[in-house]
Amino acid sequence: MTDGVLTPEQILGAAEDVLRRYGPAKATVVDVARALGVSHGSVYRHFPSKAALREAVTERWLDQAHASLVAAVEAEGPAVPRLGTWFAVLFAAKRAKALKDPELFATYMVLVHESSGVIERHIQGLVGQIERILRDGIARGEVSVEDPPVTARAVFDAMNRFHDPAYAGEWARPGIEEAFDAVWALIERGITRRRR
Amino acid sequence: MTDGVLTPEQILGAAEDVLRRYGPAKATVVDVARALGVSHGSVYRHFPSKAALREAVTERWLDQAHASLVAAVEAEGPAVPRLGTWFAVLFAAKRAKALKDPELFATYMVLVHESSGVIERHIQGLVGQIERILRDGIARGEVSVEDPPVTARAVFDAMNRFHDPAYAGEWARPGIEEAFDAVWALIERGITRRRR
Repeated sequence: MTDGVLTPEQILGAAEDVLRRYGPAKATVVDVARALGVSHGSVYRHFPSKAALREAVTERWLDQAHASLVAAVEAEGPAVPRLGTWFAVLFAAKRAKALKDPELFATYMVLVHESSGVIERHIQGLVGQIERILRDGIARGEVSVEDPPVTARAVFDAMNRFHDPAYAGEWARPGIEEAFDAVWALIERGITRRRR
Repeated sequence: MTDGVLTPEQILGAAEDVLRRYGPAKATVVDVARALGVSHGSVYRHFPSKAALREAVTERWLDQAHASLVAAVEAEGPAVPRLGTWFAVLFAAKRAKALKDPELFATYMVLVHESSGVIERHIQGLVGQIERILRDGIARGEVSVEDPPVTARAVFDAMNRFHDPAYAGEWARPGIEEAFDAVWALIERGITRRRR
């Protein structure tokens, strides 16, 4: 492969392969360069350090479900069911990652703990999407909450069991769908505007 | 110390000291017996195996906050604020454990992962207390929920950030009290009966 066509996306893809193969403790920038058939200098031209490359890989992995989540944010129709769909999409994406490729998932858990800044930004992005749906619901007269950013974070926290990787061990257990529905029903009732 | 007066409670106290001193990987029944000045046979008379002793220590530690929680369950007055107090007491107890004696806390995290049966029983006990408060609230006309045991578990899940040790790292951060209040406000609204 010639250097001229090397894109950040190609480097990130190769880095993920290398991480999957060697594990987070052993994977190096030289391994990534070798996998791409380029010098490690070519990799450093895009990512100034090993830490920067690992952060970028982590961020890309965390953001993979974003496209389908944004679709739920921007969909037409009542806000409260849209927020329910948003959480169902988030849960499905996280479960698929944890259950279909558990080794890569474990690798990413290590990376996520390395770069708390990345995870903070990721969470802020997700909470921002919840806030947009809540504000839309307020505008439509369907939602009543006092402080949209605070409630957005509270809703995110309340659904922790269905998106926080700390609970990944429970995501294949029978009854987890019903547990999701029960917590969501509680939140749904907590944010819906009461008609007088 | 003579064997005649050795109580299970004394053994559990000594076992906790030994665990704190040697860590969960190294602590043995012989260490516990030595700390009490008795033979290891005397310990085995009360706890048939090292695993049984460790489980009993873990259970005692998990149940330490129970007395104050039961007080909240059995208190007089409106059910919804009582449930809020119950969660505040639970959070305070967990935080105190995690922040005041972090080494012992880490030790117990290891023990808890060893004995999933103990943690399951502990959670069932807590969810049962929530259910009692919800049922009392229904009887008093203050609470409206469709399925009390299912909602009790959902409420417990929704408050995970404020009792699950997986989040212990966040419990000393500024803003955690406000986060508690925000999630609780959501649940409060989700369970309170709407007057027509």
